[in-house]
Amino acid sequence: MRVSVIGGSSVSDVVYEQARQVGHLLGTRGHELVCGGRGGVMEAACRGTREAGGHTIGILPGSDRTAANPYVDTPIATGMGNARNPLVVLNGDATIAIDGSTGTLSEIGLALDYGRPVAGLDTHQIEGVEQVDSPQTAVEYVESAGSDS
Amino acid sequence: MRVSVIGGSSVSDVVYEQARQVGHLLGTRGHELVCGGRGGVMEAACRGTREAGGHTIGILPGSDRTAANPYVDTPIATGMGNARNPLVVLNGDATIAIDGSTGTLSEIGLALDYGRPVAGLDTHQIEGVEQVDSPQTAVEYVESAGSDS
Amino acid sequence: MRVSVIGGSSVSDVVYEQARQVGHLLGTRGHELVCGGRGGVMEAACRGTREAGGHTIGILPGSDRTAANPYVDTPIATGMGNARNPLVVLNGDATIAIDGSTGTLSEIGLALDYGRPVAGLDTHQIEGVEQVDSPQTAVEYVESAGSDS
Amino acid sequence: MRVSVIGGSSVSDVVYEQARQVGHLLGTRGHELVCGGRGGVMEAACRGTREAGGHTIGILPGSDRTAANPYVDTPIATGMGNARNPLVVLNGDATIAIDGSTGTLSEIGLALDYGRPVAGLDTHQIEGVEQVDSPQTAVEYVESAGSDS
Repeated sequence: MRVSVIGGSSVSDVVYEQARQVGHLLGTRGHELVCGGRGGVMEAACRGTREAGGHTIGILPGSDRTAANPYVDTPIATGMGNARNPLVVLNGDATIAIDGSTGTLSEIGLALDYGRPVAGLDTHQIEGVEQVDSPQTAVEYVESAGSDS
Repeated sequence: MRVSVIGGSSVSDVVYEQARQVGHLLGTRGHELVCGGRGGVMEAACRGTREAGGHTIGILPGSDRTAANPYVDTPIATGMGNARNPLVVLNGDATIAIDGSTGTLSEIGLALDYGRPVAGLDTHQIEGVEQVDSPQTAVEYVESAGSDS
Repeated sequence: MRVSVIGGSSVSDVVYEQARQVGHLLGTRGHELVCGGRGGVMEAACRGTREAGGHTIGILPGSDRTAANPYVDTPIATGMGNARNPLVVLNGDATIAIDGSTGTLSEIGLALDYGRPVAGLDTHQIEGVEQVDSPQTAVEYVESAGSDS
Repeated sequence: MRVSVIGGSSVSDVVYEQARQVGHLLGTRGHELVCGGRGGVMEAACRGTREAGGHTIGILPGSDRTAANPYVDTPIATGMGNARNPLVVLNGDATIAIDGSTGTLSEIGLALDYGRPVAGLDTHQIEGVEQVDSPQTAVEYVESAGSDS
């Protein structure tokens, strides 16, 4: 399956490591990653997925695809700013949200609106988001919930 | 100023009346309204604004501008589905959220991300949203906060 | 009806005057104008329409609606760059193209793709575009062709 | 480099074969392909690129990424209809246009507007498009022109 990973573009080392583990688990289990293509959680998750041999997609706000973080295999430039947020969650079968601020909140809302299962790790407490406590449980949740959708 | 009003497309009579009062106050005070152009809160707010002689804009998800609710003066078709949500809040100086579900949540996140003041009336409890208890206080909040931005 | 006017953002005085006449005729005959909201043909057409008492809409590439030319009544910011081009022609019942370069060419293609009648005044020679020789014939063409669509 | 291939979604066998050869040459020479993800020229080009071991991206108008043609490796759903056209050409370093109608015309205009070199094979005669007479010369043109941009 393909999983959207969303979260802050500037994060602590602890959050970065969590996101990297999420990405690594996704790659190990044969999933493809899609994210917003930038730094922080997005970079960490791409890095983990790629280290595990998986494929990573970054859907960027800007119009220059070389602005993607170095772990994005397939960058997609949009030049649409925040109007690209819907595409990040639309292009995954399920979403994992890690940390993050208002941009992440908007993507959680959009993911739920598209009917995507959402696992939340140290992120916004939103009805409909499955709060999980580890990278492992995040990935397990989206595997079980996403395969039904 | 121009104010974005967001909220559910299918709402109770009580919520509809609140949204209509918000719209009416906006029109009375010389503000322009922008919304998603559909039913429920969007229709009620447009109706109120128009009844007060104000101008209403509806930014629609579909590609047919005649699908706007009958109180939209200037419908804008996008054919972009939920990817039009950012445009609804980008095009106001401030946002009033009334009721609403996941689509509204995504717009609250986007409004905050764009740095827009957000007043919330019976809606999601989100950090950064000013919770108000009446149409009057909603409009007063966005007037005071929006004029600084 | 609502008519899209497209064309160059930097034009000669002769072209500017033609676009202004197109806009003036549209306003006089009770039509609404939609354009890309910027300078050149867009400004001239808005100016003419407004001078005739008509309503003008500008769908902007940037995210700041105050960047619209001064004759736009209802500016719509998109922050989407050229990805807003489809919205300019989607939001009219017919299109008048005046002068213009590659951006205008893309909008002609999109207008035809949406099935909109297109009148061309000193612009690209494209199959499907009705070449006209005056503001008067441009407006008459879109009135006759657009009312059928 | 990454090359956008644009053209009709329903084409003759002769055109299909040309597009497949273009795709095959791109894959053989180590280029990545991006297209609109649908049938006709898009399918043929993806097929050729994949047969040569290259990677193919399809940026779709609809919101269901499984609607991509079977030769797309990385489908990107947009749900934006024609408003996704800009993304197809923005995401390549150069464009090859083959056959095609109004949608292709809009993409040629957008590609030129973004400053992308465009090779045209049996397509619209547009100033700024390098008219070529074979898949080989199309690929050679974008290689030489695209590497400068």
